[in-house]
Amino acid sequence: MQINIPRGTQDILPGTVEKWQYIENRIKDLCDRFQYNEIRTPIFEHTELFLRSVGDTTDIVTKEMYTFEDRGERSLTLRPEGTASVVRSFVENKMFGLPSQPVKLFYLGQMFRYERPQAGRFRQFVQFGVEAIGSKDPAIDAEVMALAYSVYESLGLSKLKLVVNSLGDKESRLAHREALMGHFSPSIGEFCKDCQSRLEKNPMRILDCKKDHDHPLMKSAPSILEYLNEDSKQYFEKVQAYLTALNIPYEVDSNLVRGLDYYNHTAFEIMSEAEGFGAITTLCGGGRYNGLTEELGGPEAPGIGFAMSLERLLAALQAEGIELPIEKKIDCYLVALGEEAKDYTVGLLNELRKAGFSAERDYLDRKVKGQFKAADRLQAKFVAILGEDELKENKINVKSQETGEQKQVNLDHLAAALKDFQSY
Amino acid sequence: MQINIPRGTQDILPGTVEKWQYIENRIKDLCDRFQYNEIRTPIFEHTELFLRSVGDTTDIVTKEMYTFEDRGERSLTLRPEGTASVVRSFVENKMFGLPSQPVKLFYLGQMFRYERPQAGRFRQFVQFGVEAIGSKDPAIDAEVMALAYSVYESLGLSKLKLVVNSLGDKESRLAHREALMGHFSPSIGEFCKDCQSRLEKNPMRILDCKKDHDHPLMKSAPSILEYLNEDSKQYFEKVQAYLTALNIPYEVDSNLVRGLDYYNHTAFEIMSEAEGFGAITTLCGGGRYNGLTEELGGPEAPGIGFAMSLERLLAALQAEGIELPIEKKIDCYLVALGEEAKDYTVGLLNELRKAGFSAERDYLDRKVKGQFKAADRLQAKFVAILGEDELKENKINVKSQETGEQKQVNLDHLAAALKDFQSY
Repeated sequence: MQINIPRGTQDILPGTVEKWQYIENRIKDLCDRFQYNEIRTPIFEHTELFLRSVGDTTDIVTKEMYTFEDRGERSLTLRPEGTASVVRSFVENKMFGLPSQPVKLFYLGQMFRYERPQAGRFRQFVQFGVEAIGSKDPAIDAEVMALAYSVYESLGLSKLKLVVNSLGDKESRLAHREALMGHFSPSIGEFCKDCQSRLEKNPMRILDCKKDHDHPLMKSAPSILEYLNEDSKQYFEKVQAYLTALNIPYEVDSNLVRGLDYYNHTAFEIMSEAEGFGAITTLCGGGRYNGLTEELGGPEAPGIGFAMSLERLLAALQAEGIELPIEKKIDCYLVALGEEAKDYTVGLLNELRKAGFSAERDYLDRKVKGQFKAADRLQAKFVAILGEDELKENKINVKSQETGEQKQVNLDHLAAALKDFQSY
Repeated sequence: MQINIPRGTQDILPGTVEKWQYIENRIKDLCDRFQYNEIRTPIFEHTELFLRSVGDTTDIVTKEMYTFEDRGERSLTLRPEGTASVVRSFVENKMFGLPSQPVKLFYLGQMFRYERPQAGRFRQFVQFGVEAIGSKDPAIDAEVMALAYSVYESLGLSKLKLVVNSLGDKESRLAHREALMGHFSPSIGEFCKDCQSRLEKNPMRILDCKKDHDHPLMKSAPSILEYLNEDSKQYFEKVQAYLTALNIPYEVDSNLVRGLDYYNHTAFEIMSEAEGFGAITTLCGGGRYNGLTEELGGPEAPGIGFAMSLERLLAALQAEGIELPIEKKIDCYLVALGEEAKDYTVGLLNELRKAGFSAERDYLDRKVKGQFKAADRLQAKFVAILGEDELKENKINVKSQETGEQKQVNLDHLAAALKDFQSY
């Protein structure tokens, strides 16, 4: 009986995996330029971590987490997002004490949410994200957005929209919260159950509701921007001035809330405006989370970051019809005639590989014709042909598949001959 | 309150992660040369997969799996090893029908076993492994061992021991099984509980017992090599001849069994013989698993592969005192004097990064001295200094930290100037 892959997950196979590798290499290169260093945290964490950071009223925590007990009866959860783990690690490893501040980190890894599988939504998906912890300079907010934007731009995406908002500091949020409660409570009965419970716990989340999106009270809801105090306002203006200095086009949208509890000040999303990209247009979301390190038992260390799904990035590339420049050729295929020659290629193949060439031979006892076909399938740049006679004379025939040029070389010098050939 | 990392797992932080990146890049390069393509399977699979492939009497399955139910009441398990998932994917995606055969795959990812944490043992660990499915040419057994060996050798490890054995085909194993039962059953009472239950289920596993390792009957146990039929014997001889052709030193050890149910014919391990490497010397284990594709609902497709732990690889490098050649310098640090100059560096920094340089500025409102210190900490190759006067004149001072050479260049041409500087 066949056993299938779990629902909502996917295998990434040769033919597709090269795109992932290409994108990941681009990301790593950009992170190096922007001076974000990689961090790798475990696939699972203590469940408590996500309750405390993501927030225990969010959809992620209440409906979507893969939570289980290990054999030692600890409650563990497959990470649904990356920020909590990075901040946990920042605190646990006392990175606030490092000489280089702020601490700028990136991660690239699988995340897990038990969602209804649909186009562009997987239960296991891959996120690239960064966190810059230890600075409240608005220039770093702009840098973080510039990095996210650069990833998309450098891969050729052009139909991008950056939307920014400010959620203000605690004081501003409290004032806004009061205003929202005043606005929604008289008619809260017209809203969904979730919104009704959000009213007391976190009325800002009502603005993010997918069900009640078109309710007339949504449009007229008081904007956070009208409730920003002077500090928050100045901070947001500075962030916008830097975005302008960076030549990154953006829009302000005071309804942008983000689904996680820990955000304040800057919040942003990058959307794809490509036609046919589908209903879910968000490619990347992020924001500032001053206070999260304290929430997780550490000292004050203001942070900002973003996360982007690579599955969505791939979908956006497809929607804009962008082909990544992936070349998949091998350097040399060894064709052998006869048992003895075939045995000889085992060592010869290894010599080529040791010399740095990608090389292959037949493992299916194919006739010569079949071996040549295999070489074609692998798009071999060179084919080296070894017959019984050549073996006796310690020679081998090499043919360039691109130019058709052919020569016979000493069997011990095949690698050198290939290098000569290639340097033309 | 601080929340800690789950027991038996680790964060891989900047300072250490560069070693992982270096090793992974080396692995990917070697896989390209050897023509193994990457496959990525999910972190969890249906539990049934591991019961059927790894074997329901193994320690892994009975004691060490992270098994849980998802919200749809499916039994899922965090993968304890990689072969089952790859073979599941091979069957499910009908890779047996691909024109290029055998299908040669590699994976690099986290695995999970609920073991007692100890030096060199983690509950989450990273394995690199390959699977070549679709050929029973003994040359591919040798290739797979050569690839594993190359990874270690190319990183500088020299205290290596490759041990090989043949577990024979079904017929040979049955004959050996009879002999083992005859050998052990009269005295089975002297063995541990696990061995007693192994006697009926899989007596070969007794040879692998850690508790009864020194029992006198172990040494005198009938060797599988005496029970190999003609086909199995010839196969094993051919594998050894190829290893010799590849100049890979090896030893035959008829007690090498491997802890998984699915092996037959070739089994091998690579050990570290470095002093002080610790009790667990195995770096890598692998073998042939003809029959596993059928077991998982596919057609016949003989396979062979190996898996190696990167944690152990790192420990072996340390035991041999090998430093990986990791360079961690940045190209340029921007030092700014005054508010206006500082603001200006936001855009300038981005220009440098767009031009391909790794570059950094201050985000902590440091004085000039502090900014120079930060540049030193990051081992900046160049420092570019922008004061209010230079800004007015549209100039900037660049200094090579290596040679001490300094020049003033046009502010709009900083990237070009850095390129000139570097080309000396």
